[in-house]
Formats: sequence, C-alpha cells, structure tokens
Amino acid sequence: MKLTLEESAVDGDARCGTVRTSRGLIEVPTFMPVGTRGTIRALSTHEFSSLRSSDATVAADVMLANTYHLMLRPGAETVAALGGLHRFSGFERHMLTDSGGYQVFSLDPDVTDEGVEFRSTYDGSTHLLTPESAVRTQELLGADIQMVLDVCAPLPSTRRVLSDAVRRTALWAERARGVHSRTEDQALFGIVQGGTDPELRSESASVTVALDFDGYAIGGLSVGESRDEMLPSLEAALAGLPRDQPRYLMGVGDPVSIVEAVARGVDMFDCVLPTRLARHGTLLTDEGRLNIKRAEFASDERPISASCRCATCQRYPRGYLRHLAAVGEPSAATLCTIHNLTWMMDLVAQIRAAIRSGSLGELRLRLAANHAGMAPGQSTTGSGELATQ
Amino acid sequence: MKLTLEESAVDGDARCGTVRTSRGLIEVPTFMPVGTRGTIRALSTHEFSSLRSSDATVAADVMLANTYHLMLRPGAETVAALGGLHRFSGFERHMLTDSGGYQVFSLDPDVTDEGVEFRSTYDGSTHLLTPESAVRTQELLGADIQMVLDVCAPLPSTRRVLSDAVRRTALWAERARGVHSRTEDQALFGIVQGGTDPELRSESASVTVALDFDGYAIGGLSVGESRDEMLPSLEAALAGLPRDQPRYLMGVGDPVSIVEAVARGVDMFDCVLPTRLARHGTLLTDEGRLNIKRAEFASDERPISASCRCATCQRYPRGYLRHLAAVGEPSAATLCTIHNLTWMMDLVAQIRAAIRSGSLGELRLRLAANHAGMAPGQSTTGSGELATQ
Repeated sequence: MKLTLEESAVDGDARCGTVRTSRGLIEVPTFMPVGTRGTIRALSTHEFSSLRSSDATVAADVMLANTYHLMLRPGAETVAALGGLHRFSGFERHMLTDSGGYQVFSLDPDVTDEGVEFRSTYDGSTHLLTPESAVRTQELLGADIQMVLDVCAPLPSTRRVLSDAVRRTALWAERARGVHSRTEDQALFGIVQGGTDPELRSESASVTVALDFDGYAIGGLSVGESRDEMLPSLEAALAGLPRDQPRYLMGVGDPVSIVEAVARGVDMFDCVLPTRLARHGTLLTDEGRLNIKRAEFASDERPISASCRCATCQRYPRGYLRHLAAVGEPSAATLCTIHNLTWMMDLVAQIRAAIRSGSLGELRLRLAANHAGMAPGQSTTGSGELATQ
Repeated sequence: MKLTLEESAVDGDARCGTVRTSRGLIEVPTFMPVGTRGTIRALSTHEFSSLRSSDATVAADVMLANTYHLMLRPGAETVAALGGLHRFSGFERHMLTDSGGYQVFSLDPDVTDEGVEFRSTYDGSTHLLTPESAVRTQELLGADIQMVLDVCAPLPSTRRVLSDAVRRTALWAERARGVHSRTEDQALFGIVQGGTDPELRSESASVTVALDFDGYAIGGLSVGESRDEMLPSLEAALAGLPRDQPRYLMGVGDPVSIVEAVARGVDMFDCVLPTRLARHGTLLTDEGRLNIKRAEFASDERPISASCRCATCQRYPRGYLRHLAAVGEPSAATLCTIHNLTWMMDLVAQIRAAIRSGSLGELRLRLAANHAGMAPGQSTTGSGELATQ
C-alpha cells in the first residue's frame, strides 16, 4: 500500500501535510512515541490515546512498537491470534513496527547475507532473523507500517564497513519487497543507510527508491555522531527520495535535530528519549531540561510548566512530583511521561505552525538557543534499548 | 468537626446513608483505597479520581494516606507548605490519614505511656511518635479525617496484653482529643481496641465514646485472626458506638468480611488488598480471583470480566494484560489496579442496592459462595505494609 503525502504548506524544504493510510490520515511532521512491547512504558494505552498538544491540534497519531521484543514475548503468532497489534494493545490509531534489526545488531550477532543469528535476551535461545522472516513477523503483528530489515553500521566505521552495509541493506530490501504480501492494509518502508558518508547515502537512496517502496526511512543516524556529522548525510539521503512520499528519520528525538531535519524535508520521527528521560525524572521544558528529583523542588508549588496543558501540569505541583520520584512511586514515571510526550506534541504543533506561517527559521534559532546541549546520538544508547525501551 | 450520619435505608443493622464533612458528602457504606504516600500505587490521582463503579453510582470518594510514610518523606511540614494533602496530591475529594501507629508498631518499637520510639525504615533515624505529635502531624497533612494514635496488639495476645492496649489507647485518646485544634475542617476519630475479647471491646468502646469523638473506628482486627474470631468482637465494639455517627473498620478489605461487617452496622473500610493484589497480577472477579500471569490467558481475547465497565475491561484482552504482567511492564499494575478498584466499587454498589432493597442476606450468601477462601487477616501483612503499601 503505497503512501503518498499531500502537502498543505511548505517553508523551504520543510512541509506540512497528510499521509493517507488504510486506517486514516497521519498529519506530518509527526513524532511517534515508542511503545516497545506494545505499551508506552509507564503509560496505559488509553491514557496515551488521550494525549493532546496544549493547543489541542496534535494527537497521538502513531505509536511505534519493537518487533524484536514482540517476536520473543509474547510472540508474533500470539499477537496475531489476539487480532493483531491494534486489538492486542487497545490502540486504535496508527502503529508502526521496526524490523527488529536495530536491537539484534546491538547483540553482536552472526551476520551473513542470509540474515542475522542472535541469542534472545529473554532466555538465551538462538534465532535467525532474515529479510523474509522480518516481513512475515511484522505481517503477523499487523502494524499499519512495517520496516525492512537493514544493516545499521556503528559510527564511526570505515568506508568499507559502511559500503558493505549499504550493499547488504539493498540486497535484503529487494528480498523483503519480494515477499511482502499484506499489501492491501500495510505499508512497507525501505531504509537508506550509508553512515556519515554523503556519497554512500546518495547511492543507498537511489537503489532503495528503485525498489519502489511505500515510504522511505533514513536509518543508521543518531548512533553517536555529532549533529554536524549527521546533517550532510541526511541531506544526501533526502535528495534521492521522492517528494510525494513520507520520509522518516529513525531514532532521532532531540528537539534541535528534529527541527533541523524538518527544515530539510523529513516528515516522521521516533525516539525513546522523552519517555526514557521521564522515567529518570528529567522533564522537557521550553527553557531546557529540569530534573524533578532535585531538592530545590521539594516545596515548589508551581507546575512543571505554566503554559503546558497536560494532565500533569494541570493538577500536580513540582513538590508532589519530586516526592513521588524521590520515593520511587511508579506514578512519578507516568506523570513525567505524560508531560514529556505532551511537550513533544507541543514541539510538533510549533513546527507545523511555523511552516504554515513561513517562520521555521525563527523557531530553529529559538530551539538552538535552549536545546543545543544534546547531540542526536544521545537519544539512543544501543543495547540499553533492549532493557528499557 | 463532629460527623453525623444520615441514614437513607436500613436492612437489619446495615445502613445506607451520607456523612456530611466540611468538604461535602461521603456516601456509605464505602471502601477507601489506600494511597500510602499520597498516591494509589501505580495509579495517578487523576486516573483514580475518574474511577466509577460499572453502574456509575459509586465514585472515588475517599483516599487514605499513611502518616508514617508522609511524616518521613517528604515530611508533614513540606506537605503543609504545598497547601496540604489535597493540593499536594491533586485529589479533590475526601482524604483520611491514619495516625502512623499501625506501621510503627510493626517495627518493634519502644513503647511507653509517653509514646512510641522507632527507627525510620528510610534512613534509620530515631523518632518519637506521641498522641500529641500524631495529631499535630495530621493537622499539618490536612486530611478531612484524622485518626488518634492507638495501641494495636498482635493476635493472638494474652488478655493482659490486650487489656494494657485498651488502657493505653484510652489514655492516648484523651490526650489526642485535648490537643486537636483543627476542629473547623478536620474530624478526629477515636479507635476501639480489645483484640478478640468482646468484653474488652465493649469496655474500649465505652471509654472511647465518653471522649466524644467526631467518628469511631474499630482497630486491631484483620491482623491474622479468623473471621469467626473477628466477628463477635466487632459486634461488641459496634454495640457501644453511637448510631448517628460513622463507624470505620480499619484494614479490612476481603469481600466476605466487608459484607458481614456491613450487616453489623459498619460504614467505612480501607485495605491495601485490591491494589496489592493488582500489582501481583491477581484480579478480583465475581467468580473469585484470577491470576493474569497464568499461561492459559496468553491468547485469551476476552476482557477480565464481561460485565465490568472499567477502562481495562472496556479495552484490553486478557492476553495483552498477561503479556504486560509477564514482561514486567508497569502498565500491567496500572491496568490491574483500575480493574480491582472498580470491582471494589461494584461491590459497594451491590451492597448499597441490597440494603435499599432489603436483600443483603442474599448478597451475603452469594459472596460467601465465591469469596470465602480468604480470611480477613490475609488482607494485611504487618511490616510488609511499609515497603509496598
């Protein structure tokens, strides 16, 4: 099911628009929170579904789930027996599954052209993930969008390693395209690799687009490199992707990288950052980050943010959140997650409004002033993903 | 602030009615969930506040919080600086605090007529809890109802130990009554002790009522004794309490004990049972208990209960809940807590309806058939309270 993007506003290379799927519309640009095992950690699906940006223009449109975890627990067949991911998790909007490759490559697996052999972090059992099995598993899971199995090389890597990753990614992409059968209600996205080498990125985009995927992702970034290293490769990849289809930058969630990528034409993002930070008591605000566990907040009657309309800021003083976090109450993670995801929706709302009013440049400057401290690579931490989403 | 109960229906000694407080009305009989540290564990206050029985007649009217925990973390002065428990926690309905004595007595403290000296489970520091300091601490916390410091003897105990507990409880009750100053918006409840000795229960009720409290509780039951041992002492205590004031049976939460106590004239209950069971994946249903972690539920598409209208049963199949619990996702505890508290509200709704229609006897038989397996003493476990509410 080929996804096309209908543009409603542009500002330079940035665009607002809608992507039509078999389930409905995805408004872009969008940020997709990560529900690793079919749930946003510390949040129920019904609470996640109810989240809105403070101006109520952005909703929880897409949730990402991790194939690696779901194929092992409870198993893709079990999810299918329960009617697929939507009925399983109770989430009625769009779902996207990754291929499982990102987690598997962090486990130092045996990789051949056939696929990736790895040991389960749950019970040590051995599994083979191939381009074909990744497609079949994701068909069973039944998300609206699935991703091809790709080779995500670490950074820095030699040109030879990056080039091999591009070659194998293309080989696997063709095999995945060939076996994908759930084409009436599920989109299959190809993934551009190439590390921080613009030439390889351009080559990878070209061979991936030649396979005619339903949408395109840029993978293998936000793995430790600086933003200055990331952006030229991102630009090279984007230059090779069709303008009328959605473009998804995988694993990037820091505000400055998001707005810089949007300015270059990216539509979709995912990252564990806002939810993981929340579980450690780190809150996103317009002025930067705030760690709620600090003693200075113990008697603070103010909400996290006076302008935020989330359930947490509407009801709870910082002193209460500090108390919950300090004593380890699970509701601390819940309330901080609600705030951080709302803040990300507010960021998306600001980005969309800036594109519509032609003022994205000003927003980029403002975000750079308050949120430049974090490199894109800080947003994901390899195998840490496995345990904590 | 003396609380009076206005009866609206009776069935034998059981009654439905309303208790007017400075905050509003409490409908009774009622079950008060325990939010140890100012939050129901694994549930946000706003989600707790939104809970309703399946027929929508019972709401989250009262939340209990534990003075022992709050006086140590974050400290009663900090809660007061944040405007008291209601503004602190964001809970807008009634709150009740215990005296802290129940937890402190489980720590094997030094007890004299002056008070109880104990070591904090948080940092080992030494503290003295007296009848006067318990009142002052609870005035700072600012719940709508506070409890006197009492002596809760373990069961079984010798008559001498029980008798001493009654004597000291009366001594402390008089001192607490004397120093309670926040009388315009806070009720102070006396507590009847006496273990499983009906004669001592009667004596304790008599001296407690003579002090003219705003309401009365029966303490020191549900600490390991059987229901057959509990009920005669409960009856002896109730016989000595005024009919026009609320009666609160502390720490009892198993369905059969609740309905048997209601049949004898009890109005209010609290217990960690439904929330603690939920965190271990044990769900309350009309047919008895169900542990969601069992493998048989892995592919079960049904809700926990077809008749339950809670957010969990309305949206999530058992297979999903089983998955979340099996992999340790925190939302498992949240979703199971929502169900178990809703089930308790449904129980309250059934009890009220049965009293109104004069059919409480039938309900007692029905509950006994499906829920007799649990003794009241299983509902609390002494020092386990400290760690897990």
